[in-house]
Amino acid sequence: MEFIEGGVCAANGFTANAVLAGIKKSRTKSDLALIESEVPCSAAAVFTKNLVKAEPVKLSMKHVANGKAQAVVANAGNANACTGDQGYEAALRTARAAAAHLGLDETDVLVCSTGVIGQQINVGVIESAMESLCEGLSKDGNARAREAIMTTDTKHKEAAVRFEIGGKTVTIGTMAKGSGMIHIDMGTMLGFVTTDCAITPRMLKAALLESAERTYNCVSVDGDTSTNDTLIALANGLAGNRMISSKGRDYRAFVAALDAVNAEMARNIAGDGEGATHLIECAVTGAKSDAEARKLAKAVISSSLVKAAFFGKDANWGRILCAMGYSGGVFSQAGTSVSFDSGKGAVEVFHNGVPLDFDEPKAKEILGETEVKIRVALSDGTGTGTAWGCDLTYDYVKINGDYRT
Amino acid sequence: MEFIEGGVCAANGFTANAVLAGIKKSRTKSDLALIESEVPCSAAAVFTKNLVKAEPVKLSMKHVANGKAQAVVANAGNANACTGDQGYEAALRTARAAAAHLGLDETDVLVCSTGVIGQQINVGVIESAMESLCEGLSKDGNARAREAIMTTDTKHKEAAVRFEIGGKTVTIGTMAKGSGMIHIDMGTMLGFVTTDCAITPRMLKAALLESAERTYNCVSVDGDTSTNDTLIALANGLAGNRMISSKGRDYRAFVAALDAVNAEMARNIAGDGEGATHLIECAVTGAKSDAEARKLAKAVISSSLVKAAFFGKDANWGRILCAMGYSGGVFSQAGTSVSFDSGKGAVEVFHNGVPLDFDEPKAKEILGETEVKIRVALSDGTGTGTAWGCDLTYDYVKINGDYRT
Repeated sequence: MEFIEGGVCAANGFTANAVLAGIKKSRTKSDLALIESEVPCSAAAVFTKNLVKAEPVKLSMKHVANGKAQAVVANAGNANACTGDQGYEAALRTARAAAAHLGLDETDVLVCSTGVIGQQINVGVIESAMESLCEGLSKDGNARAREAIMTTDTKHKEAAVRFEIGGKTVTIGTMAKGSGMIHIDMGTMLGFVTTDCAITPRMLKAALLESAERTYNCVSVDGDTSTNDTLIALANGLAGNRMISSKGRDYRAFVAALDAVNAEMARNIAGDGEGATHLIECAVTGAKSDAEARKLAKAVISSSLVKAAFFGKDANWGRILCAMGYSGGVFSQAGTSVSFDSGKGAVEVFHNGVPLDFDEPKAKEILGETEVKIRVALSDGTGTGTAWGCDLTYDYVKINGDYRT
Repeated sequence: MEFIEGGVCAANGFTANAVLAGIKKSRTKSDLALIESEVPCSAAAVFTKNLVKAEPVKLSMKHVANGKAQAVVANAGNANACTGDQGYEAALRTARAAAAHLGLDETDVLVCSTGVIGQQINVGVIESAMESLCEGLSKDGNARAREAIMTTDTKHKEAAVRFEIGGKTVTIGTMAKGSGMIHIDMGTMLGFVTTDCAITPRMLKAALLESAERTYNCVSVDGDTSTNDTLIALANGLAGNRMISSKGRDYRAFVAALDAVNAEMARNIAGDGEGATHLIECAVTGAKSDAEARKLAKAVISSSLVKAAFFGKDANWGRILCAMGYSGGVFSQAGTSVSFDSGKGAVEVFHNGVPLDFDEPKAKEILGETEVKIRVALSDGTGTGTAWGCDLTYDYVKINGDYRT
């Protein structure tokens, strides 16, 4: 498996584009993105578990229910959430406009929105922009699409991998956006996966759910699960591999590659958390199970106090133990060790249940690096799990103290 | 029922004191508090649900198990958590020293600690200070004790009420500390309730649990449940009322008064949240049940995004709906209305599921007040519930970015 360029256009048969439709008056960069496959796709999606679902989420849930889709429209600048029937109609009109220009059935178009909650979206500008959006679809359009879905993101997020299944070269590409209102279940705003793998809708859905559990669902920026979270996968089969229709070796190869691009997005979202200056990765080993390890790791990277301590480069490991303690996960404190690792150096602060008299200046230096790993070694089993988060900074407060205006 | 002065010394037979023992070298104000009843008490306590329990929590759980106690020692400056056998021994020596000077059985002394996690506590200075701590016990000692338990608290927190049970005057007094590492279950660090009510240990425990559910368990500052949370109640019976031994009218009168002082502490803790500039109260009505109402209210005041919006005086009500949506609570969005109320003025922003075109300058003015109530009116039943939180500010990040040094 090798990482390659191309994002959502890396796989055979996928093109993308983006334009500035003017959904939010103050926005000067593109705000409307489109991804299309030249042939029909197996489609699967994971949506927010928030009871308050945005209108495009409700629409896309219906459209993806048959396991088929061919295009995705995504806009920034307005979440189209808490907008009632008028909002749903806007999402439907968006799908219809794209379908008309692309010659597709409207149920084969999925729609995603991100931005402010509770304001009606100006669907007129989306309809007006649809012709140029569709006409501009191209193989290098990933570079435009990845920008158009950004809100408070400071960096675009995309990845692609190439690998083999049964002697055939298969490609998976992805792009994502997400910076705030990010929490476990789902830890994203929007994620798009495109692949030329031949895989049934049922297996695609299984792979997506399984992979999300280990990747997107292990990210937290601020503990808020959005109303719009959507992770969509389209698989058009153009790689020519034998159709994956069961959980055999081919399925496992596909999931491993999917994990790689999804984990990359998860890391990128955490590292680009609103106001973040540090990516915090918590890796738990020796837990009773993988699920238990993830539960503990998620609690650590979700803790406001741990996050604030990282901002202050303060090796306050007691807060890590405290977060593990209230996580709901079970572990033996006497068999717990904790260390900080920046890749350039590491320092152990707690060993088998006993506080260590560690080198404070060295710890401060390690915590000063942009990416810091918290290693938690337990003695309860062989379960492992990783979660990604970021520090809590003045800028997070600033960005979210006045987001609407 | 009337509110009176006197805090933990308001009830008959209780005295208190505090001294500077020097537990944390840099501290210049008192750090060791003591409350004593002149006669044995019915005792009950609620402890942190954190799996990682501080050593004094483990000790006090044992000592209170028989439903009897007569004194409480509490220190600030060191949490004595994650300190293993050495820490447990320190908590035990603290109880022993107090028992020796007061002429009590060591199992009738409860111990609480608050401060930094993961450092061994200097129990020698506590033992040295114990004589003067015990000798200085007095009826006005509440004023000293309430200061000694403060860490990052900016204000002391105490209350007392006087009411009647069966023609006898009964008093309940309390003091509490808590500012950070505050979350639902328990939303406090330390709380102490003293009363001259005659009540059995079993009924005292029932009353304390019931009241905590509606008060301390509805507070969040930062989503972190501490390792040291303890709420202790001592009832010495000196009011001379007929012993409360079942859940009849007298019990209900007692619980109503207990709710009053506990809710006052809950409000004070939230309003004094680390770095807070606003107390945020979320009052939900029309829910399916009281428990459902509290679940929704707690999610709203726990949301980092809601908290940051209040800091910015931004009427971003979409985040309130979003938090309710991921709370796990069930409600009909179409029957939901939301308004902001500062007591001086109110503005509705969402009515029966539809966004309102509200007066933004007026909303900003309301959100500028120190205490703001979010009123959520549902149409699902008659359940009501309130939760208390605070805004997320630059100062929260600053205080917690470098707490240990």
